[in-house]
Amino acid sequence: MNASFDPPHRILMGPGPSDVHPRVLAAMARSTIGHLDPAFVAIMDSVKAMLRYAFRTSNDVTFAISGPGSTGMEACFVNLLEPGEKAIVCVNGAFGGRMKENVERCGAVPVIVNDEWGRAVDPTKVATAIKANPDAKALAFVHAETSTGVRSEAAELCRMAQNAGMLTIVDVVTSLGGISVEVDGWGVDAAYGGSQKCLSCPPGLSPVTFGPRALARVKARKTKVQSWFLDLNLVTAYWGGEGNRTYHHTAPVNALFALHEALAMLREEGLDTAIARHAACHAELVEALAAIGLRLPIDSNIRLPQLNLVSIPDGVADAPIRKAMLDQFGLEIGGGLGSFAGKVWRIGLMGQSASRRHVALCAAALRAVLP
Amino acid sequence: MNASFDPPHRILMGPGPSDVHPRVLAAMARSTIGHLDPAFVAIMDSVKAMLRYAFRTSNDVTFAISGPGSTGMEACFVNLLEPGEKAIVCVNGAFGGRMKENVERCGAVPVIVNDEWGRAVDPTKVATAIKANPDAKALAFVHAETSTGVRSEAAELCRMAQNAGMLTIVDVVTSLGGISVEVDGWGVDAAYGGSQKCLSCPPGLSPVTFGPRALARVKARKTKVQSWFLDLNLVTAYWGGEGNRTYHHTAPVNALFALHEALAMLREEGLDTAIARHAACHAELVEALAAIGLRLPIDSNIRLPQLNLVSIPDGVADAPIRKAMLDQFGLEIGGGLGSFAGKVWRIGLMGQSASRRHVALCAAALRAVLP
Repeated sequence: MNASFDPPHRILMGPGPSDVHPRVLAAMARSTIGHLDPAFVAIMDSVKAMLRYAFRTSNDVTFAISGPGSTGMEACFVNLLEPGEKAIVCVNGAFGGRMKENVERCGAVPVIVNDEWGRAVDPTKVATAIKANPDAKALAFVHAETSTGVRSEAAELCRMAQNAGMLTIVDVVTSLGGISVEVDGWGVDAAYGGSQKCLSCPPGLSPVTFGPRALARVKARKTKVQSWFLDLNLVTAYWGGEGNRTYHHTAPVNALFALHEALAMLREEGLDTAIARHAACHAELVEALAAIGLRLPIDSNIRLPQLNLVSIPDGVADAPIRKAMLDQFGLEIGGGLGSFAGKVWRIGLMGQSASRRHVALCAAALRAVLP
Repeated sequence: MNASFDPPHRILMGPGPSDVHPRVLAAMARSTIGHLDPAFVAIMDSVKAMLRYAFRTSNDVTFAISGPGSTGMEACFVNLLEPGEKAIVCVNGAFGGRMKENVERCGAVPVIVNDEWGRAVDPTKVATAIKANPDAKALAFVHAETSTGVRSEAAELCRMAQNAGMLTIVDVVTSLGGISVEVDGWGVDAAYGGSQKCLSCPPGLSPVTFGPRALARVKARKTKVQSWFLDLNLVTAYWGGEGNRTYHHTAPVNALFALHEALAMLREEGLDTAIARHAACHAELVEALAAIGLRLPIDSNIRLPQLNLVSIPDGVADAPIRKAMLDQFGLEIGGGLGSFAGKVWRIGLMGQSASRRHVALCAAALRAVLP
């Protein structure tokens, strides 16, 4: 029980975490320094600048919450909603459902726009909900649903919310770094991501960005933010401003070393190039799967290149195949969630796992283990 | 901005983080695996078992929250208090004050027992507060105040709460692994620690433990826990039970590799030996500081060996000395907080930083930079 351990060397092609580059692992293992060290403050500034690049925003308040993507989600809702306020929440998968939970736990009132799992959020339904609820304070939706591999039309949804004077809260956990995310271009007010998807960092950090309208809303609150840890007024005194930082909590220093390195790699490659790489690997995967008789159930025009649902052929068992992939090839793919459980596998091509090598190995391994 | 970076190699003798052993840094850099990988589930079980050892408890629900110590604190309050309920909160430093903030943000009502910064929580005052508020649901206090270097009488305070039928919520962030923490022996119902103090892990995780009375309270709640991320009903479905884990959030896999290694090292050394080492280093530090004319303002019978307040001599400036220590020796010590700001330094002897080497270097460096 108390001996050191050596985790198996996996190839991560599930819904996240994705493979982490040795450069990022090495960065994570650098000597810990203090969270108020002048050298660490410089790293924080650099992380903020590189996150602005990834989010395509000039928002000053762009940083990483010291927790997984769920904390980024919670940070958006607890700061931007007050008890009794309405928020329109689009649910077309597991993470939309989680947004609804968050709204309720803030004492706010979710107005749900439901779409079937596997479909994009329907802008017509959203328009109807906006019209019926002009007093709603925010529109919240998931850009890239990890549970279904579906992309929704973020630009259009944001435009509708903006015209109605509502804030937008957008989940870009699986999209950030893998497909185009245009925080400023779309007019997103608040967005949160995860470190362990297309940024290929170990899990544990949630990049977030808040625009001026969102910050004005936080300043105008009548009630205190219900989470001390996630209160933007407090967190930004540590992450914000230039130079002078006020202690709030102890930042996960080494995790931020890793994020710094992963973002540096993204800048070296270039965001457009990284996005094109995800698209190219997706095309190659589709072709390789077709060659062994596997098809993708999601419409190609809303499909996420970085997260591929693959229909499990009739008569093939789900879990034993995934276990065989893991045991025989050390290769992790994901199972289905919700209404897709047992019906699909989820194959991630995220960040470092979006490579021709990964595609070739995954297809070959599937061919070997399928009956 | 986007180049790799090399953090300076510091010696960490502030209030945390403490120095991290190369073995722990190496563990953190092992290949990331999936958070539902069978190999990872085994590591989680092992972390739970070793945390029980550190907390001296048999509580099944003993694990690490995926965030800094502040999230462990918040997890205790949001799960154990419901809106309108009373909690007695002892405030004798910065972290007691943070507890009060947490209680208020749960919509609960804090009854404050105030003691001067630098003094222990006064059991007589607590007895009075308990008598005056028999309807209070919990007594919350900080075992080891990081802001003042003071230890309070946890055993006595827990006994009083138990006799009154109140739960105890105890902050052991700075005590865990450095002085005796007896969760079962004292009858603590809920406690939270931090990875980056006497466990000498990088910051980012908060070990917690919840006893049967606390869990019964969570089960009996009439309202939902206000934080989705910290809801014990959901988190324990991932961390709890044997074998079968339900996805909740993506655990910070590499951070848990590091915690596993740090706990393995604690077990190898033995908790009693580690505690004795902290005490011995403290004694040596006191002597070394006396030799250069420095004194400790906190009474020796309530002093934390692992966090030492040192009075800044008259006419000596605070920040320039700390800067000189950092610039000339790469050695970090902490400044004072609250009423101690500018009046004391805080010298940490935590975990790996509790060594004769650290004591000798710190005293020599201080001697060199003091006017």
